[in-house]
Amino acid sequence: MNGTSNINIEEIITKLYNKYLDCTGKGKVADYIPTLSGVNPEQYAISVATTDGQHYDIGDYNTQFSIQSISKVLTLAMLSSRVGSEIWEYVGREPSGNSFNSLVQLEFEKGIPRNPFINAGAIVVTDKLMNFAELSGENGDTPKTATQASILNFVRDLAGSKEVCYDENTAQAEIRTADRNYALAYFMKSFNNIDNSVQDVIDTYCHHCSLKMSTRQMATAFLFLANGGVNPLTGKEVIGKRDTKRINALMMTCGMYNESGEFAYRVGLPGKSGVGGGIVAAIPGKLSIAVWSPELNAHGNSYRGIATLEDFTTELGISVF
Amino acid sequence: MNGTSNINIEEIITKLYNKYLDCTGKGKVADYIPTLSGVNPEQYAISVATTDGQHYDIGDYNTQFSIQSISKVLTLAMLSSRVGSEIWEYVGREPSGNSFNSLVQLEFEKGIPRNPFINAGAIVVTDKLMNFAELSGENGDTPKTATQASILNFVRDLAGSKEVCYDENTAQAEIRTADRNYALAYFMKSFNNIDNSVQDVIDTYCHHCSLKMSTRQMATAFLFLANGGVNPLTGKEVIGKRDTKRINALMMTCGMYNESGEFAYRVGLPGKSGVGGGIVAAIPGKLSIAVWSPELNAHGNSYRGIATLEDFTTELGISVF
Amino acid sequence: MNGTSNINIEEIITKLYNKYLDCTGKGKVADYIPTLSGVNPEQYAISVATTDGQHYDIGDYNTQFSIQSISKVLTLAMLSSRVGSEIWEYVGREPSGNSFNSLVQLEFEKGIPRNPFINAGAIVVTDKLMNFAELSGENGDTPKTATQASILNFVRDLAGSKEVCYDENTAQAEIRTADRNYALAYFMKSFNNIDNSVQDVIDTYCHHCSLKMSTRQMATAFLFLANGGVNPLTGKEVIGKRDTKRINALMMTCGMYNESGEFAYRVGLPGKSGVGGGIVAAIPGKLSIAVWSPELNAHGNSYRGIATLEDFTTELGISVF
Amino acid sequence: MNGTSNINIEEIITKLYNKYLDCTGKGKVADYIPTLSGVNPEQYAISVATTDGQHYDIGDYNTQFSIQSISKVLTLAMLSSRVGSEIWEYVGREPSGNSFNSLVQLEFEKGIPRNPFINAGAIVVTDKLMNFAELSGENGDTPKTATQASILNFVRDLAGSKEVCYDENTAQAEIRTADRNYALAYFMKSFNNIDNSVQDVIDTYCHHCSLKMSTRQMATAFLFLANGGVNPLTGKEVIGKRDTKRINALMMTCGMYNESGEFAYRVGLPGKSGVGGGIVAAIPGKLSIAVWSPELNAHGNSYRGIATLEDFTTELGISVF
Repeated sequence: MNGTSNINIEEIITKLYNKYLDCTGKGKVADYIPTLSGVNPEQYAISVATTDGQHYDIGDYNTQFSIQSISKVLTLAMLSSRVGSEIWEYVGREPSGNSFNSLVQLEFEKGIPRNPFINAGAIVVTDKLMNFAELSGENGDTPKTATQASILNFVRDLAGSKEVCYDENTAQAEIRTADRNYALAYFMKSFNNIDNSVQDVIDTYCHHCSLKMSTRQMATAFLFLANGGVNPLTGKEVIGKRDTKRINALMMTCGMYNESGEFAYRVGLPGKSGVGGGIVAAIPGKLSIAVWSPELNAHGNSYRGIATLEDFTTELGISVF
Repeated sequence: MNGTSNINIEEIITKLYNKYLDCTGKGKVADYIPTLSGVNPEQYAISVATTDGQHYDIGDYNTQFSIQSISKVLTLAMLSSRVGSEIWEYVGREPSGNSFNSLVQLEFEKGIPRNPFINAGAIVVTDKLMNFAELSGENGDTPKTATQASILNFVRDLAGSKEVCYDENTAQAEIRTADRNYALAYFMKSFNNIDNSVQDVIDTYCHHCSLKMSTRQMATAFLFLANGGVNPLTGKEVIGKRDTKRINALMMTCGMYNESGEFAYRVGLPGKSGVGGGIVAAIPGKLSIAVWSPELNAHGNSYRGIATLEDFTTELGISVF
Repeated sequence: MNGTSNINIEEIITKLYNKYLDCTGKGKVADYIPTLSGVNPEQYAISVATTDGQHYDIGDYNTQFSIQSISKVLTLAMLSSRVGSEIWEYVGREPSGNSFNSLVQLEFEKGIPRNPFINAGAIVVTDKLMNFAELSGENGDTPKTATQASILNFVRDLAGSKEVCYDENTAQAEIRTADRNYALAYFMKSFNNIDNSVQDVIDTYCHHCSLKMSTRQMATAFLFLANGGVNPLTGKEVIGKRDTKRINALMMTCGMYNESGEFAYRVGLPGKSGVGGGIVAAIPGKLSIAVWSPELNAHGNSYRGIATLEDFTTELGISVF
Repeated sequence: MNGTSNINIEEIITKLYNKYLDCTGKGKVADYIPTLSGVNPEQYAISVATTDGQHYDIGDYNTQFSIQSISKVLTLAMLSSRVGSEIWEYVGREPSGNSFNSLVQLEFEKGIPRNPFINAGAIVVTDKLMNFAELSGENGDTPKTATQASILNFVRDLAGSKEVCYDENTAQAEIRTADRNYALAYFMKSFNNIDNSVQDVIDTYCHHCSLKMSTRQMATAFLFLANGGVNPLTGKEVIGKRDTKRINALMMTCGMYNESGEFAYRVGLPGKSGVGGGIVAAIPGKLSIAVWSPELNAHGNSYRGIATLEDFTTELGISVF
């Protein structure tokens, strides 16, 4: 990125925003729950946060959306900060094949999911986080409520905003449609790879999937992954350098569902998407970028989001490959 | 790689060579065929070729070894140069899970392998190459012999050496132990994804796996992947820029069998390994590096090879993540 | 069975009882829950009930044991009596392969289990039974409690004994170790093949598996399958002739887990086993026989139970094949 | 079969023949090779052979048709006569699930097919038969030709007719469309469960599938399975009593592809079908029956054949269940 000035970033995202603003109708908004199906598909936002403290935003960058699977990166980081490499006893670090195979693979690999970004893996991460629940002793405080509170605090600290919150309607809708996730959790429990109540684990998993953030908050929250694990807002280390590298490598190889190889090729950055239409990516040493556009392609990734990111790396002249 | 001078490369590979020279006995030489099991496990070589024409070598860099699965990259490049993106109708571009799943996936995905670096995918690539066989009309010339000759020419051109050749003993031994590959090929043929005689396809596949190269020849041959698709020896475009990027992205996500995610994390470069103990990797814009050491880890990748490459990127201060 | 008099039956079971009485130590008692692992492995009982009203018993025929999977036949009969052939929209009628495949098959066959005697199938049967729950309107009456009460009544009527009851300790232990069954149920629910609360369905499933019966009660209860669907105790039709034939055919092809083919060969009768060590079989038109001996072979079937039944058919001169 | 006189049989098959004669157009003739797709779909034949030497035939009972998978029973019997129970080290005796699972099961069960009536199992049986090839020493005699000759002799002896022969056109067409069978054979060979050349094994397998017989010849050839293993034509024991019982039990549980459970219920006899439209069944102690009608139902079994057999057992008042 020699010669890339921050001024360029503003120009680039403005150019891309204008290029893709009318490019709607090519994908489909997720429709399995009302809070996703009811979203205005024309919304579009790009936010960049740089490690030297600048922010560049355009479009609906103050509108919060459901971050969905993007939360898997945040809970993984939170767990990494607490257990270090012990986590890899419970979840693998290799790409998986298509989603069908997840059950076959779980059987073959004795209840150990392939990586933390497939649902089974993120459920295990959630379960292990619950082992760290610190009960306040107050009335009604349980491992479930304590964990959900601490996840929220963790993400708010990263985003530097108390506005980040759970969308309770979304969470409850997720829980009602979580049969396949329950199946995965119970299946792993039969291999002793789930420690807590499956009901509580799925409740917590569905809650962090229902976190609401704007692209501005998201770009800010993910900046530590571009900054060697240190939150530039606070100067505090979120996770160590090796864990940062590990999470970036995982996003590169497994972050985009069954389109991860394609994303590595087209965008060439570590990134993670959610069916809410958000995608976040990091350029280590430099910046984080969040894009949001609700219409999804056949792989469940934001149609405009991928196009925007591809052009962004091309315009910046950055390509790992 | 700012500030990385070529002088550094010589120092670094010398330092690493000395560091790992005695580090033997930690892995196991491949033993399914005599030409692999009989190799001296202590051999060790590092070769670097830079896009500006320099060569740095240390150890047994003039000794040829069986390149095995590394040939999958070369045949893929050769096919890319002939058919372009049409190839992706016959083979996918996404990481696969464990090897078991390859059969389940082939069934599910109607005989289309997940990517060109699993055996099924490389067999399809070989089959499609045979469709381009140009028969000379001479006595005994068949699609099989013509394709094997043209593959050899293609690799010799890249390596800039007529010494690259098939090891006929290895090829015959591969063919005798190729039952599972025959099974994959016939299975894909039942889905009409193999056009030629399975016997001929497997014969050709086993031949290119049995190619013999030194690390010097290998580093040279792969330089086009660090050079936007252009062979710097000849100035000729081997494949286009997009195809180059595609192959590099595939090596990053699928190049190291069931250790690809780990390799992305530890080394952070597009790379490809073979059970002969070779690993080749590229730093786009800069250099290619080939390491050879026959002892393999549990995933079938060279034990010293991975350690060497991990230290190499660390010493150079290069990390994608 | 020409020439087979009932006097013979008494002689035969006495002879077999003495032959196998000391034949212990060849199998292993089920040990996943205390009520099974704590059972005295030397217990052994044979009971025969004939369609003309005779009973022949020997050994511990008054001791109740956990009927486990044998309950799958009773709930299937109960559901057949209510829905007739509609049931086959929700569960198949063909043998399955090994247990591993149940998950793959469920995926392939869109949540429809292969037959009602694999766990997934019996869970579906239990769920559909719950759709018929008749709430009394009394305090605390729910579909779960109402269904469990009606199952108990159904089995007591067949056995002609109010002593048949649920073992609540066993039921609770089953529920605590039911993770894989929860997984199957949620997986099928994701395909819309479970209508009720999974927690309630598994609770009910675990209850009917924990029914306690003696061999005398069991032989009596299954007599309707040897009597064209009519309970000879009451003269009442339990299920129609076609459904009776259907259940017998299913027991013949799928009744003994992964040893069904072997049982068809060695015994040649429709039969069903449970991991409590019970096996029940029917000779249509003639008799039902229940054997109990807790030690299981590698397939989870009673070791002495199968030996006893094989000799029984040989002694009677009955063989379908 | 008390009270069933042979006179009844003639009446019954005449009645059934007239009942079903015009019942065409409900199924589809197999169409993957010309010799099957070109057959006149209206042909219909029933033949019964009794253990006391009587023959009852009606319709096109002298027309030969391709016996296809029915040959799996004959080669299994031939192998049983040579190796006895050793065969069960190489092939299982339990029902399999749907055909998809065959590859997954082979992987799980280390190359041992579930039973001899799925293609993988019949290929293993063919391979083991080739181990017994007796070479004449004559010019051109190979294990392949010798085995094919001895299979033909074995079947001709059973059928009491030299007219039974291979249809060479059918055999060659089968070989050309045998890719999936080649895949299965090579896959099993990779587990060391195939001893001979896969090409020769598949050639031999395709030949015995292409045997041509009339229903009269077929009913005669299968009479030994209704006669305790003794060929009533010659008085010679073909296979022992236990092996006879075993093969009958296997036909009962696995003889009708994915319709075996249904056939057990509707017909209740050990039987085997082929995609040529033939079905053969045995009533132990009494008779064998062969029906031929080329139109197949969705499971690949003769539509009229199953209907005829169901009515036949109903009319005879025979039902195992």
